[in-house]
Amino acid sequence: MATERIASWAVDLSYASLPPEVIQAAVNSFYNWVGCALGGAKHPTTTIACEALAPFFGKPTSTLLGHKGAAGERALTDASHAALINGIASHVHDYDDTHLATIIHPTGPVASALLAQAEALGGVKGEDFIVALVAGIEAQCKLGLGVWPKHYDIGWHITSTVGSIGAAVAVGKLMRLQRTPMQHAISIAATQVTGLREMFGSDTKSFHVGRAAQNGLLAAVLAARGYTGSLQAIEAPRGWARVVSVSNDVDGQVATLGQVWEIAANAFKPFPCGIVVHPIIDACIQLHHEMADAGFTATDIARVHARVHPLVLELTGKKTPQDGLQAKFSVYHGGAVGLVLGKAGPAQYDDSVVLRAEIIQLRDKISATADETLGADETEVTVNLGDGTTMKKHIQHAVGSLEVPMTTAQLEDKFIDQVSPVLGLQGAMRASKACRAIQDAKSVTELVKEI
Amino acid sequence: MATERIASWAVDLSYASLPPEVIQAAVNSFYNWVGCALGGAKHPTTTIACEALAPFFGKPTSTLLGHKGAAGERALTDASHAALINGIASHVHDYDDTHLATIIHPTGPVASALLAQAEALGGVKGEDFIVALVAGIEAQCKLGLGVWPKHYDIGWHITSTVGSIGAAVAVGKLMRLQRTPMQHAISIAATQVTGLREMFGSDTKSFHVGRAAQNGLLAAVLAARGYTGSLQAIEAPRGWARVVSVSNDVDGQVATLGQVWEIAANAFKPFPCGIVVHPIIDACIQLHHEMADAGFTATDIARVHARVHPLVLELTGKKTPQDGLQAKFSVYHGGAVGLVLGKAGPAQYDDSVVLRAEIIQLRDKISATADETLGADETEVTVNLGDGTTMKKHIQHAVGSLEVPMTTAQLEDKFIDQVSPVLGLQGAMRASKACRAIQDAKSVTELVKEI
Repeated sequence: MATERIASWAVDLSYASLPPEVIQAAVNSFYNWVGCALGGAKHPTTTIACEALAPFFGKPTSTLLGHKGAAGERALTDASHAALINGIASHVHDYDDTHLATIIHPTGPVASALLAQAEALGGVKGEDFIVALVAGIEAQCKLGLGVWPKHYDIGWHITSTVGSIGAAVAVGKLMRLQRTPMQHAISIAATQVTGLREMFGSDTKSFHVGRAAQNGLLAAVLAARGYTGSLQAIEAPRGWARVVSVSNDVDGQVATLGQVWEIAANAFKPFPCGIVVHPIIDACIQLHHEMADAGFTATDIARVHARVHPLVLELTGKKTPQDGLQAKFSVYHGGAVGLVLGKAGPAQYDDSVVLRAEIIQLRDKISATADETLGADETEVTVNLGDGTTMKKHIQHAVGSLEVPMTTAQLEDKFIDQVSPVLGLQGAMRASKACRAIQDAKSVTELVKEI
Repeated sequence: MATERIASWAVDLSYASLPPEVIQAAVNSFYNWVGCALGGAKHPTTTIACEALAPFFGKPTSTLLGHKGAAGERALTDASHAALINGIASHVHDYDDTHLATIIHPTGPVASALLAQAEALGGVKGEDFIVALVAGIEAQCKLGLGVWPKHYDIGWHITSTVGSIGAAVAVGKLMRLQRTPMQHAISIAATQVTGLREMFGSDTKSFHVGRAAQNGLLAAVLAARGYTGSLQAIEAPRGWARVVSVSNDVDGQVATLGQVWEIAANAFKPFPCGIVVHPIIDACIQLHHEMADAGFTATDIARVHARVHPLVLELTGKKTPQDGLQAKFSVYHGGAVGLVLGKAGPAQYDDSVVLRAEIIQLRDKISATADETLGADETEVTVNLGDGTTMKKHIQHAVGSLEVPMTTAQLEDKFIDQVSPVLGLQGAMRASKACRAIQDAKSVTELVKEI
């Protein structure tokens, strides 16, 4: 039932049937994914995978985003390895999108597979890319909701376990699979259950996202040639849902396909650190600008105090971080860069910034107390200036939440911040412009040349 | 504890420390695997995978067993795809080896990865190949025993789920990984949990074996470059064992590494059909020879009656099979080819044999009754000849069981039967000779050229 329902819904989906807000959410999701994939292209986790697997690279049809060949040209590999490597890169900074109801990062597995295969096929229109992206993300989030939270609790990395299936649906849609082969594609993807939470904190966490992309691509490519799995892969007594979760409501969730759009509830991280720090950073950046308007700078600050949800101190209470990775777990660093620099992008988590004197000095002036009456994305920050002035900022919902989504300008700032170190500012702006309009692209292959 | 124990045991294992019966079991396992991989090379399930994935094929270092290039030369691909395709081929006829305590088919995932990587590395000695094969098979069977039977009951295809890890240990051993990277290799393999039993009866069942080989190879290759997973991948509170099974005794099983050798309990199928039919076939082949010695042929037979374990009729009671696949589920066809032809290899399951008049005539003279007092691998077959003579054969344990293992001559007959249709009789004999002596090979790369 669920397998057939997902397949027939995806097969029938058309661009004309997508509500405008779904198209916009898909474009934003793709755009944010490209920024993350470029931003992670030079991370050691990506580099090791690239070097280790180079002997396996096949026909060069698909772009390794942000990589260059020996002569400075765009680096290409086969679609399967492009899916893997771009998938790893897009998740390695933990800066990608989040379907908050399931904490799935939905675009990584799906877009990594889809872009790689779109380039391999050639001549794919932006509209068709968007439809396939939506089909894959909807399928994966519905399955995720169907097994949430038991599946995650037992120890599965839900982004990649459902991501394999989402990627198969997306690539299958791009390849115009009919219903039965689409069911087999779902099946071949479902049998490759990749991702244990035990790997969090290691290179293998982002590998999961790349491997899920590869699993799904492989499944669709095999199914397109007539390879068979089970037509009831998801719902059978020994099918995916029962094997990977002690209880599930997959049928109930799948029934809402096309009625409740999950991609419209996809959120984007404004800051490359744990989500619990986001309210403080949001408050401190706003205070930075308000202080500037009033003629103050960070050197005028005497004391800062934040009331925060108890989880903030439990997860990110590190007082004296020594490098960028530790700083991701320091609410004090997040507040300090917000107040001093008015930004908290990847550059503000560079080791050199973490050890800069003015950041350390302000960091040491910040205190925080837990307050159980606050929401998880709520905070109140009070700044006492040396001249006796007090400034306060209450954040009800942090930027990047569903209530206060990132604005287009904020998304673009994030993209440019991530991409400039890889492509240069001019290159980043060119890539940004191309990706913001993917829905209108005549050819995704041509669009990628702008990246 | 289990992760570290498997890794350090595998790292320390040496050829000199292997008991002679373990070396012989490893050689037999490899030999039987080569026969199955060659025998399955032209199966449609293998062909589809090969054609669908050809665009992804990389640097041609490793042999696609039984495949030819355009000019009739051995076909090569990258190690990862060779592992996948040879793995699929080796399992597609359900004719491979069985670790009876767990019904794992252990050599498929491990040897498929190992041979492919041995060719990619070059200069691997037969001794080193055997040590790596043993390390991988022991690791995978201990883990299998550790989660058996709950893991299988819930719906996991245990051959491939533990096979990924076995393949990683084997390839890691071949690449001389030290303890910590070997733990990471185990970890990266463990996170790729491939294989749902729901896929049984489809192309995807044998895909599991190939994908497990590929998963493990990928894990070892990444770990060799410093890629990290979890050092407690197997035993952590949210590690592999707890996520894939509701209970486990992994620590207890792993503690017996090097004391109880699982590979010594690896059995080989003498006939390409369900194991419950094997006692009848065994009896009928013996009766064929005894009749011949007494001057009778199958045309002299009036009636045949078999007493069998009840499962035989439940699983293989098909009276009038119409093709080779159906014949695998017919105890009557199995008995008929045994009596008429004195053999029951793949050729005797060809569609043309199933529909041959003399086979059908004898098949219709066979009756069977269930007898609960018999063991699962026990039978008694009575043949009444037209002249009033009666011949009986009681089988206590079928050939291929641990009590009556296949003899060297039977293993060689099986190999030649499978390989001749692919390589011709001369080629099959040459391959047989080379593979029987792999432990003495100076170079596995040179050995493969004989196949």
